[in-house]
Amino acid sequence: MNKRAQRLTTLATGVVLGLGAAGAAWSEDTLKDVMDRRGLTEKDLLAAAKTYVPTGGRDEFVVFASGGQSGQVIVYGIPSMRLLKYIGVFTPEPWQGYGFDDESKAVLEQGRTRGKDLVYGDTHHPAMSETDGAYDAKFVFINDKANPRIAVIDLHDFETKQIVVNPFFKSAHGGAFVTPNTEYVMEAAQYAAPLLEDGFVPLEEFNDKYRGGLTYWSFNKEKGRIDPENSFTLELGPYSQDLSDAGKKDSYGWGFTNSFCTERYVGGIERGRPPFEAGCSSKDTDYLHVTNWKKAEELVKAGKVKKEKGMYFIPLEQAIAEGLLYLVPEPKSPHGVDVTPDGKYIIVAGKLDSHVSVYSVEKIMKAIEEGNFEGKDPYGVPIIPMQDALHTQVNLGLGPLHTQFDSKPCVAYTSLYVDSQVAKYDYCEGKVLDKLSIHYNIGHLMTMEGDTINPQGKYLVALNKLSIDRHQPVGPLHPQNHQLIDISGDKMQLIYDMPLPLGEPHYAAAIRAELLQPAVRYKSGWNSRTDEQHPNRTRAGRETTERTCDADGKCTTRVMGTVIRSHITPEIIEAEVGDQVHLHLTNLERAQDQVHGFALYGQNVNLSIEPGKTASFSFVADEEGVFPYYCTEFCSALHLEMQGYLLVRPKGYQATEVSMVEGTLYSQADYDTQVKTNLETQAVIDQVVAYITARNFQDFPTAVALVEDATDQLGFAQESKKKSEDAAAKADWQNAMLWANQWWQYQVKAADLGLRAKNLLDEEGATVNK
Amino acid sequence: MNKRAQRLTTLATGVVLGLGAAGAAWSEDTLKDVMDRRGLTEKDLLAAAKTYVPTGGRDEFVVFASGGQSGQVIVYGIPSMRLLKYIGVFTPEPWQGYGFDDESKAVLEQGRTRGKDLVYGDTHHPAMSETDGAYDAKFVFINDKANPRIAVIDLHDFETKQIVVNPFFKSAHGGAFVTPNTEYVMEAAQYAAPLLEDGFVPLEEFNDKYRGGLTYWSFNKEKGRIDPENSFTLELGPYSQDLSDAGKKDSYGWGFTNSFCTERYVGGIERGRPPFEAGCSSKDTDYLHVTNWKKAEELVKAGKVKKEKGMYFIPLEQAIAEGLLYLVPEPKSPHGVDVTPDGKYIIVAGKLDSHVSVYSVEKIMKAIEEGNFEGKDPYGVPIIPMQDALHTQVNLGLGPLHTQFDSKPCVAYTSLYVDSQVAKYDYCEGKVLDKLSIHYNIGHLMTMEGDTINPQGKYLVALNKLSIDRHQPVGPLHPQNHQLIDISGDKMQLIYDMPLPLGEPHYAAAIRAELLQPAVRYKSGWNSRTDEQHPNRTRAGRETTERTCDADGKCTTRVMGTVIRSHITPEIIEAEVGDQVHLHLTNLERAQDQVHGFALYGQNVNLSIEPGKTASFSFVADEEGVFPYYCTEFCSALHLEMQGYLLVRPKGYQATEVSMVEGTLYSQADYDTQVKTNLETQAVIDQVVAYITARNFQDFPTAVALVEDATDQLGFAQESKKKSEDAAAKADWQNAMLWANQWWQYQVKAADLGLRAKNLLDEEGATVNK
Repeated sequence: MNKRAQRLTTLATGVVLGLGAAGAAWSEDTLKDVMDRRGLTEKDLLAAAKTYVPTGGRDEFVVFASGGQSGQVIVYGIPSMRLLKYIGVFTPEPWQGYGFDDESKAVLEQGRTRGKDLVYGDTHHPAMSETDGAYDAKFVFINDKANPRIAVIDLHDFETKQIVVNPFFKSAHGGAFVTPNTEYVMEAAQYAAPLLEDGFVPLEEFNDKYRGGLTYWSFNKEKGRIDPENSFTLELGPYSQDLSDAGKKDSYGWGFTNSFCTERYVGGIERGRPPFEAGCSSKDTDYLHVTNWKKAEELVKAGKVKKEKGMYFIPLEQAIAEGLLYLVPEPKSPHGVDVTPDGKYIIVAGKLDSHVSVYSVEKIMKAIEEGNFEGKDPYGVPIIPMQDALHTQVNLGLGPLHTQFDSKPCVAYTSLYVDSQVAKYDYCEGKVLDKLSIHYNIGHLMTMEGDTINPQGKYLVALNKLSIDRHQPVGPLHPQNHQLIDISGDKMQLIYDMPLPLGEPHYAAAIRAELLQPAVRYKSGWNSRTDEQHPNRTRAGRETTERTCDADGKCTTRVMGTVIRSHITPEIIEAEVGDQVHLHLTNLERAQDQVHGFALYGQNVNLSIEPGKTASFSFVADEEGVFPYYCTEFCSALHLEMQGYLLVRPKGYQATEVSMVEGTLYSQADYDTQVKTNLETQAVIDQVVAYITARNFQDFPTAVALVEDATDQLGFAQESKKKSEDAAAKADWQNAMLWANQWWQYQVKAADLGLRAKNLLDEEGATVNK
Repeated sequence: MNKRAQRLTTLATGVVLGLGAAGAAWSEDTLKDVMDRRGLTEKDLLAAAKTYVPTGGRDEFVVFASGGQSGQVIVYGIPSMRLLKYIGVFTPEPWQGYGFDDESKAVLEQGRTRGKDLVYGDTHHPAMSETDGAYDAKFVFINDKANPRIAVIDLHDFETKQIVVNPFFKSAHGGAFVTPNTEYVMEAAQYAAPLLEDGFVPLEEFNDKYRGGLTYWSFNKEKGRIDPENSFTLELGPYSQDLSDAGKKDSYGWGFTNSFCTERYVGGIERGRPPFEAGCSSKDTDYLHVTNWKKAEELVKAGKVKKEKGMYFIPLEQAIAEGLLYLVPEPKSPHGVDVTPDGKYIIVAGKLDSHVSVYSVEKIMKAIEEGNFEGKDPYGVPIIPMQDALHTQVNLGLGPLHTQFDSKPCVAYTSLYVDSQVAKYDYCEGKVLDKLSIHYNIGHLMTMEGDTINPQGKYLVALNKLSIDRHQPVGPLHPQNHQLIDISGDKMQLIYDMPLPLGEPHYAAAIRAELLQPAVRYKSGWNSRTDEQHPNRTRAGRETTERTCDADGKCTTRVMGTVIRSHITPEIIEAEVGDQVHLHLTNLERAQDQVHGFALYGQNVNLSIEPGKTASFSFVADEEGVFPYYCTEFCSALHLEMQGYLLVRPKGYQATEVSMVEGTLYSQADYDTQVKTNLETQAVIDQVVAYITARNFQDFPTAVALVEDATDQLGFAQESKKKSEDAAAKADWQNAMLWANQWWQYQVKAADLGLRAKNLLDEEGATVNK
């Protein structure tokens, strides 16, 4: 019996769901009851089984999607399609403290454009860093179309580390794309504008003075930062450059960038003329730009390229003369240009042509070598004849947009915008293999590592702009819709619809989850944005508040503080009106996920201080008053008690000799009661400790982390116990009682952690040590 | 055979999954193969079947969760746990244009505090509007703890309409909670501070001059706005007031607010004293505040309450004298105070006590009537004896926090923070029914409409702060984790883990999805923030750009423009440096989900213009230059061509007589070719139209909407066709060709819509008309 026949047999005999072992709690529902009640078909159930990830389970792939106009990067898992994170990139985001702490403000400030702080971005195309053409799980790059910029995200901590501003462009849709060893990050201009001139140039001079361009941003992998000093920009014709892809393997050293509006049409509605959409889509072909970045790099290194506005700039004439730039006609208003995994072909999808055009790199190179050109564009760039560059064209349907690759050789997928379909085809043979309808308006699509030299197959995501009737209505502004498609078989199968709640993801990249190994904590006292020890870090017991005034009477209050369950040190900050205040807070926790926040009334501050991080906030205490502050993260049972007061005194205020009146007074009896509780609590803790240590807890990483954390808390308990006993020895019952309570607070935290570790061991089936 | 026995029989015989009808595409996988490959147990499969929602399906409930420090409100579906929307509330968010267009900036400006624009919020507790104690699906309210404010979200369009600033408080965790007819929205202070004084008051005067409080914000349901003029605040003791709940049915007219730190401890780390956490948790009891809002309202209406800082303010002495305020001791550091659906009991969960305390409203009222007090607090507020107010106490476990109710009588669920469990119990009998372990650190929990007079049962969500090992690691800052629990049977069943990617939801409210009926478009030319026709709306063909200068030479350029697939009118905006520019853009679309965006280089603007909306952006053109703009939403195949240029001229610039040079020139042959294409396209469209109209498309709302939209596009095509023919008649081949192309563009849009409608009819099984 062959495999296929075996499968059909299994199918016919069906699957028996006993559920007996799962126990009585589950026996009240049978699968059939649930399916009937919820109206699920067998197909639905199979899709559910293909996408459901049980508690604690892991997704197979992790996606980095642009957040569109939210200015962020979205992270989600495949196949569960659960959202894991929005990384703050171009837009301030308070939960992460992004754009609120001094450290991340410095990153955003790198993105200032024409002297203005920008508080959003229009992100389009994330690119993952590569080594030898494969994802290396180190960095993600993302562009801002509205204000041409590129951001660098480090996958060590999923934080944005750098933003660079393109000095030439005034629009840049076509970024980010990387070369096979992340030597460069490609960013192409979109709407043409004067490159070297930021002032006014009338539109009448469009053909002469407006230009497109392509920047190769040099990336320093060691430092994890873009190096603008060694980056270069190629001047291009005033076409609307669009997406790019870098050559790989056979095409290594080259870049490919398409364009639309090679008609060079400029507006017209005000003059009674048709809009851009007609003027920019009238010709049957546009131009694929073929650029030789390897040779350009050599010219730069040889000192043959001049700098403009601080960056190496290669004018059109030089690019043409040095053989850095060629054009190939490509069908009507293309969007995607995608190099096949072997680097031998380039697939271009022209939105207004029903074909994808498969170009042969070998043929293009041959034409260049032989000087086989059909002429030049108006700016003197040689044009390779289309028929001499094409391998084949495949008729797919209406509105082809973007292409990704399967793990199977020669198999590609292209999104069809107008048809709202995904087409699967063999680009070697030029043969359509399958089509699947999706809902609605697919833009990009994405396969797993589908733009690398080794695509992983298995899944495809259709990034649909419109969701219309797919989801519960939530007002005139709908979510987007990402649809998950199983591509493991011959036929594509739609298995999940995911609404995207914030931002419009234009493109995405998916990587095997196992390749990502992010940190769960920072080294203690760390500036996460510069990846260095923070000069203003501090340690437990070394917290300080210092006020200094200069000769002109300008005063500064600097707080070097700490946060740990459940207190902020200092709990009282005193300053005088007009003071420049600098707050530096270090999270002393080592426990995974034990984040603290910091908010201060009236001052626009919310910090997110992950374990080990030092975060700062600077402001002028411009008004006298009482300003409560507190930890904004629900960090422990007494999280609400993690609070303090900033007191801003009037200038020259003299404190009267009023000492603090206690709200509640405690006696020796109170102390004795608390100590009794503590001793009882310790007995419980000892039992839990015995339970855990009698078992193989070392085999469970989360249990080990919980035990380490509990041990820390018990250490703090000991310190408080000692303070309590010292006070009691002096018959200072007020402090004795309060320190005894603090001792208990630490015990509660330790018990909490111990109980969690115990539950985890029970659930995971830990065994008793022999 | 009884029902239970029947079920067990079904269980034993199992479920046969034939999948025959689903066709060959699905036959390659059997369910068993998939389960084996993915390591799913039968329990997992059952959970998958309980939560999976197939494409186009609907969730049963919609959740509104606080977005924590993101400052937003999160919307998601149950049981699929898919995120549907982040509503911009206290934090600017560019995708929605929130805080970027003039209209929403005006909403955020209402939230200015102490003269400062605030660009975030720390949202905690959403409340849905109620009528007769049940959700009426009209409004959502949410508080900002950091800067005491309340926001109003209208569920007609899921937009934030209003923000009000509390004039007295400097911290307010305990909001929003509504009275049974949304007469008032309750907001309690948290960290005590001087109420009437915004200046400096030394902490030494804490007991005398710092105070807590409780504001009852009056809500005008007709207008959909809070009415600060008729709102009032009760002064309370300097305790940390926490959560509230309004009485209902038997307890209508009363409010209940708990508190912690009734020890009135103030800090101490700097003085070598224990931190707040010890000082604020040393007593065994704190105070439940019982307030009579109905009587307070009568006093206000009778003119017996004075205003302070523009709001009615009821000092402690007046509240005591008028019988508006009583205290009842409640166990140690409580968080949740929750009134049972019948209004007869109040359940208080004290974090540091293992019990929940069930208070009897009848007993409390009796004590008040009889003047049965055990004394007064230091501020003279009468204290009802705890034992005379209690119905019962139920021993649940460590760290009880918050309580919600089942549809079954007397059944409640309380979160146990330290135990990381949910406890199910009978609060009438005081009996524990079930416990379920969750992961990790549950804060609030939520049942479906679980804080109304008619809870819906079925599901419970555990809002867990820590996710630790539940999800794929994404760096030191983890997502939160919401766990879905099936409560339909006797035993609770954990069925889904949802990572929350942005912000820390503290509390949430779930409503039946069927009750929500939001709009999909606005009336044409609508200001969505004021809910009025926009004074600067315009219509197709009436777009204007006007420049006016005043006597001082200050000039204003005002653009009344439109957006529609795929052009922005105007496409060129000219201004002079220094001009005040006002852009007003109206979306002319009527089609669902057909949103356009607007971004302009260098100016910090991203608009989201949903169908019908008019959005504005004002700025000073402070630099000369060339500034591209474009539509940021992927709205059509030629979305990238939806572009334009703002040209800012130097002062006094005189245009030279250079006329526009065309990039590409067209001939009669080009025109004829285009017309031929258009006629062929029309033939395809006619076929699609015939296909659709031969079927019962009127029975499918989405198909009807698509057809209406396609008809609109064909109307536009006719207009372009006429312009094309007019130009051809004058042998103006340039314009003839371009208008013919524009005619085709509209045809493509119509065809796109028609094909989608056709596919939808095929999929949904539409039938041929008889």
